Amino acid sequence: MSSTKYIYDFSEGSADMRLLLGGKGANLAQMWKIGLPVPPGFIITTEACHQYWKENDFIAGIWSDVEAAIGRVEKLTGKNFGSSENPLLVSVRSGAPVSMPGMMDTILNLGLNDDTVKALAKSSGNERFAYDSYRRFIQMFSDVVLGVDLDKFEKRLEQARDAAGVKEDYKIPAEELKKLVEDYKQIVADAGHTFPTDPWKQLRLAIDAVFRSWNTPRAITYRKINNIPEDYGTAVNVVTMVFGNLGDDCGTGVCFTRSPSTGENKLFGEYLINAQGEDVVAGIRTPMPIASLGETMPEVYKQFCDIAKLLENHYRDAQDIEFTVEKGKLYILQTRNGKRTAAAAVRIAMDMLHEGLIDAETAVSRVAPEQVEQLLHPQLDPKAKRNVLVKGLPASPGAAVGKVVFDADEAAERGGKGEKIILVRPETTPDDIHGLFAAQGVLTSHGGMTSHAAVVARGLGKPCVSGAETVKIDLAAETFTVGDVTVKKDEYLTLDGSNGDVIVGKMELIDPQFDDNFRELLDDADKIAKLQVWANADTPEDARRARAFGAKGIGLCRTEHMFMDADRLPVMQEMVVASTKEERIVQLDKLQVMQESDFYGIFEAMEGLPVTIRLLDPPLHEFLPKIPELTKALETLDPNSAEAQKIQATIARARELHEQNPMLGFRGCRLGMIYPEIYEMQVRAIFDAACKLTKKGVKVIPDIMIPLVGTKFEMKAMRDLVDEVAKQKLAEHGVELEYMVGTMIELPRAAMVADQLAEYAQFFSCGTNDLTQTTFGYSRDDAEGKFLGQYVEMGVFEQNPFAQLDRDGVGGLMTIAAEKGRKTRPGIQIGICGEHGGNPSSIAFCNSLNFNYVSCSPFRVPVARLSAALAAMGVIK
Amino acid sequence: MSSTKYIYDFSEGSADMRLLLGGKGANLAQMWKIGLPVPPGFIITTEACHQYWKENDFIAGIWSDVEAAIGRVEKLTGKNFGSSENPLLVSVRSGAPVSMPGMMDTILNLGLNDDTVKALAKSSGNERFAYDSYRRFIQMFSDVVLGVDLDKFEKRLEQARDAAGVKEDYKIPAEELKKLVEDYKQIVADAGHTFPTDPWKQLRLAIDAVFRSWNTPRAITYRKINNIPEDYGTAVNVVTMVFGNLGDDCGTGVCFTRSPSTGENKLFGEYLINAQGEDVVAGIRTPMPIASLGETMPEVYKQFCDIAKLLENHYRDAQDIEFTVEKGKLYILQTRNGKRTAAAAVRIAMDMLHEGLIDAETAVSRVAPEQVEQLLHPQLDPKAKRNVLVKGLPASPGAAVGKVVFDADEAAERGGKGEKIILVRPETTPDDIHGLFAAQGVLTSHGGMTSHAAVVARGLGKPCVSGAETVKIDLAAETFTVGDVTVKKDEYLTLDGSNGDVIVGKMELIDPQFDDNFRELLDDADKIAKLQVWANADTPEDARRARAFGAKGIGLCRTEHMFMDADRLPVMQEMVVASTKEERIVQLDKLQVMQESDFYGIFEAMEGLPVTIRLLDPPLHEFLPKIPELTKALETLDPNSAEAQKIQATIARARELHEQNPMLGFRGCRLGMIYPEIYEMQVRAIFDAACKLTKKGVKVIPDIMIPLVGTKFEMKAMRDLVDEVAKQKLAEHGVELEYMVGTMIELPRAAMVADQLAEYAQFFSCGTNDLTQTTFGYSRDDAEGKFLGQYVEMGVFEQNPFAQLDRDGVGGLMTIAAEKGRKTRPGIQIGICGEHGGNPSSIAFCNSLNFNYVSCSPFRVPVARLSAALAAMGVIK
Repeated sequence: MSSTKYIYDFSEGSADMRLLLGGKGANLAQMWKIGLPVPPGFIITTEACHQYWKENDFIAGIWSDVEAAIGRVEKLTGKNFGSSENPLLVSVRSGAPVSMPGMMDTILNLGLNDDTVKALAKSSGNERFAYDSYRRFIQMFSDVVLGVDLDKFEKRLEQARDAAGVKEDYKIPAEELKKLVEDYKQIVADAGHTFPTDPWKQLRLAIDAVFRSWNTPRAITYRKINNIPEDYGTAVNVVTMVFGNLGDDCGTGVCFTRSPSTGENKLFGEYLINAQGEDVVAGIRTPMPIASLGETMPEVYKQFCDIAKLLENHYRDAQDIEFTVEKGKLYILQTRNGKRTAAAAVRIAMDMLHEGLIDAETAVSRVAPEQVEQLLHPQLDPKAKRNVLVKGLPASPGAAVGKVVFDADEAAERGGKGEKIILVRPETTPDDIHGLFAAQGVLTSHGGMTSHAAVVARGLGKPCVSGAETVKIDLAAETFTVGDVTVKKDEYLTLDGSNGDVIVGKMELIDPQFDDNFRELLDDADKIAKLQVWANADTPEDARRARAFGAKGIGLCRTEHMFMDADRLPVMQEMVVASTKEERIVQLDKLQVMQESDFYGIFEAMEGLPVTIRLLDPPLHEFLPKIPELTKALETLDPNSAEAQKIQATIARARELHEQNPMLGFRGCRLGMIYPEIYEMQVRAIFDAACKLTKKGVKVIPDIMIPLVGTKFEMKAMRDLVDEVAKQKLAEHGVELEYMVGTMIELPRAAMVADQLAEYAQFFSCGTNDLTQTTFGYSRDDAEGKFLGQYVEMGVFEQNPFAQLDRDGVGGLMTIAAEKGRKTRPGIQIGICGEHGGNPSSIAFCNSLNFNYVSCSPFRVPVARLSAALAAMGVIK
Repeated sequence: MSSTKYIYDFSEGSADMRLLLGGKGANLAQMWKIGLPVPPGFIITTEACHQYWKENDFIAGIWSDVEAAIGRVEKLTGKNFGSSENPLLVSVRSGAPVSMPGMMDTILNLGLNDDTVKALAKSSGNERFAYDSYRRFIQMFSDVVLGVDLDKFEKRLEQARDAAGVKEDYKIPAEELKKLVEDYKQIVADAGHTFPTDPWKQLRLAIDAVFRSWNTPRAITYRKINNIPEDYGTAVNVVTMVFGNLGDDCGTGVCFTRSPSTGENKLFGEYLINAQGEDVVAGIRTPMPIASLGETMPEVYKQFCDIAKLLENHYRDAQDIEFTVEKGKLYILQTRNGKRTAAAAVRIAMDMLHEGLIDAETAVSRVAPEQVEQLLHPQLDPKAKRNVLVKGLPASPGAAVGKVVFDADEAAERGGKGEKIILVRPETTPDDIHGLFAAQGVLTSHGGMTSHAAVVARGLGKPCVSGAETVKIDLAAETFTVGDVTVKKDEYLTLDGSNGDVIVGKMELIDPQFDDNFRELLDDADKIAKLQVWANADTPEDARRARAFGAKGIGLCRTEHMFMDADRLPVMQEMVVASTKEERIVQLDKLQVMQESDFYGIFEAMEGLPVTIRLLDPPLHEFLPKIPELTKALETLDPNSAEAQKIQATIARARELHEQNPMLGFRGCRLGMIYPEIYEMQVRAIFDAACKLTKKGVKVIPDIMIPLVGTKFEMKAMRDLVDEVAKQKLAEHGVELEYMVGTMIELPRAAMVADQLAEYAQFFSCGTNDLTQTTFGYSRDDAEGKFLGQYVEMGVFEQNPFAQLDRDGVGGLMTIAAEKGRKTRPGIQIGICGEHGGNPSSIAFCNSLNFNYVSCSPFRVPVARLSAALAAMGVIK
């Protein structure tokens, strides 16, 4: 006998012993404890599982304990294990501290052999039942424990049905089943095994199989993906068998205490009379709704309703309950917190809060951030059949239906008129934005989760499936093919951006659900959170949307998109091509008027809340047409014409501005340093807009953000520039206005010298997109298609670092930046405005660094608000 | 009277009071102290200078102290300041703790006015001398103190010469000089000043002028460039005038105690009889060599020789001495450590070491690393006249002479045959390397100090002038023009890469000097240094050169250049284009044989020393021809021909491999992760070569370096890969061999997770070229031409961070890497192999981090060895 206690009877455990007894075992013990009708049984602990993997023949060492435990069950049931009189049959089930589909599930009817089956036939008075149980047991045990191919059993079963001239298994007569059992044993023998007749040997092999199942490749992979610790281990549950298939006073069923689909507070379940658990799942007979149990077995139903309420009150969460009725007696076989849709999760949480069953913190913690996404985008009806053509990357969640179009201009035009369009491109570029904007969704054959299409789509809240590499697009023919299926322009296509499904045809969409419950939940989340949630928004429309979703400020307003409009781009191009400062200023003066109106609208939408405006960031050549295009345009022109001369000048400037590595080039505040007149124009526009609104009584809080700062010198120069212009403008308008000047932390050097930057920077905003690129030395555009996908597959990192913040590297630099910045300027406002600002794990990290806010795309604001609360509570870390 | 002591008589100071008294004053006081004949005087301290800038009218506050000090000088000299009997005249000179040409230098003869000049005439018995001194004083004082335009005085002086009918100033008779003095005073009056007649007022204004000169723009700029602290301040030296121009028993001269040009140990100086100091400098009369003083004034000469020896022994360094003889009496007016050429510096240091005057550490500290560069490259004769056409950037030191060639192929061909060629290009690319290699030097009109041409030239030890922007190159015509000068192909051109001079014509070159003294000095340096110096070398020839220069290992052997040879590139290209692993392996097997021979040669050359081989680093597309070239080649081919098909495949692959930002792309160990067969081939080649040599009794120490590692996963995978192949190969050859596997630290993330990397990495080598690019977010190729030059000019950083290591950012990450690496693996070998490895300041930084070695290009090894010693002594920090 071992000195450590490896075996617990149900009477010895409770729900809080989940780590030691596994989830299933702890709940069984808990139910036993509160007096519910649970069949007697015991649990071999997760510690035993560890020991099993350490010691040779560990099970031999605890065998006497197992025997003793079986003995106690025999006493409670009055049955005897292996006895040919009144045999005790048991189920053996695995059960880890968290639910883990990778492991062995269940063996039922263990203890049957040629002797005990006869006793069972006698005691039940039902020979067919006994032999059916026996053949099921042989089949299950041989499959799960011995690894014999299931197909062989299924084929033999088919023959048995044919021989009996029946279509359903449960109609096979006892005599036929007896033959079947013999043949089953032969199948096992042919596979090189002897089917164990000794129930004790059966039990020992089953326990061994459960422990073994902890380390199958499938289980290991599942744990890795779901971050389940390797050292949890699984427990083994050994439970007395009860039978729902002994007659019409028997039955079995499953029941949720509230609707798992809507959250409605009423029992939601189904059952079968005279059946075993697996029959409910198999779907051969149609189960009946749980409410009808009130008519068929009113006593049992009443008892069950009481138990359901009891369990819900006990666990303070909606329960998923398995039960069996054996000869009029109700047994509860399992209870657990029920899985539910996002909508149900929100409703159950808020109902229970209103019922006083749980507090606000608990309610908030009942909804997962990933679920919230479901609530914000149209979805496909989960019950509808999907005809999936190909699977790409789930790049931007939600579902979209529309006609296939291959050209961004066409998508823009037709989409603008209200047609539902799906834009299909090999990949997208900034030139395609108008098409993306007007489309329902986008499909690309190249590019990853953070490709241009993916990023823009997420920003716009449009569904996107990217990197569907087997999709071969023929732009000229306006078709695409996958294998031998060809889809033409104007055919209907359905995309599910939440899982990457591409479906030919038009499926039904379900509306997103953002109801009062959800609003209230997020308001509660805000009260719990330490971090504020701001949004990245470049237009008044974005700003309004962000505010409607609950954003408490704009953390990133990019100014470059403002120059991309059809009426502005030519002016911008003239500015870029200008060869003198004077010429540049002429164009900048024109742009200033346009910029002012942009800022005016955004400030107005965000009245009373801070708006962080980033000055011009991208390299200037991004605003020029591509050189091949220009060269082509030149071909048809008289070389001496003014137009040709102008194009020549543009080509020359484009060549001059060309860069090997634009990501690391002449951009960000480097522009402001070399061409201060550009930034001066922008700051003038900001303060003109802000002052005019202030005079109208609108409270404006402009924060000016300098991009790509790497040195103290740059920070000081840019701060001086802004302060100088601001001073002039405030005097000119006779207005007083609070504003701040700060910097992005998006270069490793900025983090390293954050103490120096904070001498002049009044706030920091971590630009983790660029910071991830420079810290890893990855060009996002290049890496995705070249090696990043394979890196994620290989396990180089757990998550794509562009999706989930890399804590060791990028996070380490953010930690340094925060520490150094606060050293110089205690309490300096620090936020994050990279795409990570909408990622729950990354938000938890920002929470741990005591940041002031996270800023994300408007559509992710609800996810972020919930995540911030969960992070503050330590639910996500 | 002030409570702080602001004035020191010479008798109160000493050489170690340099910070308080300035260099000049401290040395005058020291000479006084050891009894040398110094004219009496006093020093107003540098602290007074600070106070001057803080207080209003500070000089008034110390004026009684100045009067008292003058009184003490009067007592010592028996003369009286401002007296018309026996007037005391003084010189007033600035003197900071370090020599600073930006400040006011000297006012002589202060104290003269219409009365005292008569007394001087009488006491000297020389009226011409007296009035000549007076007019010089007015001119000097008016220029330096009052800011009157010198030209006006020079024109009036010319008239005086004409009036007297003489050509030289010293022949103008006294009467004419008297008129001149009156007119000079008028010039001052016309400029709005009254020339002060009161000697006390003269003195006060002169002191004020010295203090003022500390903050002239020129002085501030000089301090900034030379890193002289702003808070040093200047002292004021007030010294009794002595006269070398009172007759033939008078004279004046300057003398070095050893040759400043060769270092030879004998007096090296010149003097003039009957002259003042400025006459020696003016060059109107030809001075006589110092030795001849032995004949003209034997007593004085003997005394001077003794003093020279005394001063040299006292200061233990070669001295630069100013002296004057007044009526047979020798006065020493100044002594300081003499400036010298690199060759002289080495010889003086080693001679003094051998003479027992100084120890080895002092000898080593007497040579500056920048000087050493002079010794390693051919130079232009410093005495020869230069006809400078244009000045570019001094991109790679040394001088080169040759015929202009505009094409790299032609340069390679003609240079290969022994012709002296100067390659002239707008800029160079990797395709031009063979031309650079065969040329004497290279001139580019674009690109900065770290442009491709500059980096490669420094690596090759070739002179290079880059970024000569006014050079307009016409490649078609094979000419270049600067303004209206046109230089054709085959004309001679001379480049001075040490200062950027481009000279039309053929100048004489002087051989580099690497003699026994220098060798001994560097050996002494090695004994002092804590850091070893290794070299970056890719070929056996490089390795031999590095070893000859004293390298103790190869810190970086790049393997990519090995694939660029004409016979290898096609194989490499086939490998890159291969679409399956099998096809790749066919080509890799061919490359392996070639690689093996490369490594064999390098290992042989470095017998007994470590050779660090970096596995393939650049993106694969670098090995493919450019797409436009391929497209062009296609035009003339039958599209169905095998050749056309092959080119099509190459184009497809090139497109596939194309990257937006190749610097941050699919390169480094990312290649090894995705195509492990490439790295496996390289490791097989390394171990085949190493094992074969080991069997021959040659000691080989191969260290394998993995580039661009950013994650622990990569490091482990690559370490496993190397160990696996090594194990196979060692077994196959039956050889035992020590080797290490390590990583570059060239990504910010590598530094942040160095503790994780060190679990598998056995050494670190900081690749500071790439680390600087990623830390700052600068693409070196792009930044130089776009904004980096302007950033350096603006003062964004003190030095271009690609030339001198950025300590705050890049250095901060290196510090983190070293700390974290050592935490996991105490004593882990750490070095640097970026270009900074040859930069003295950067070497000092590596020394401070207790690195094991720095690795630089072979030609910089001597500079680095000296720098390492100086860093160990704290001479450079």
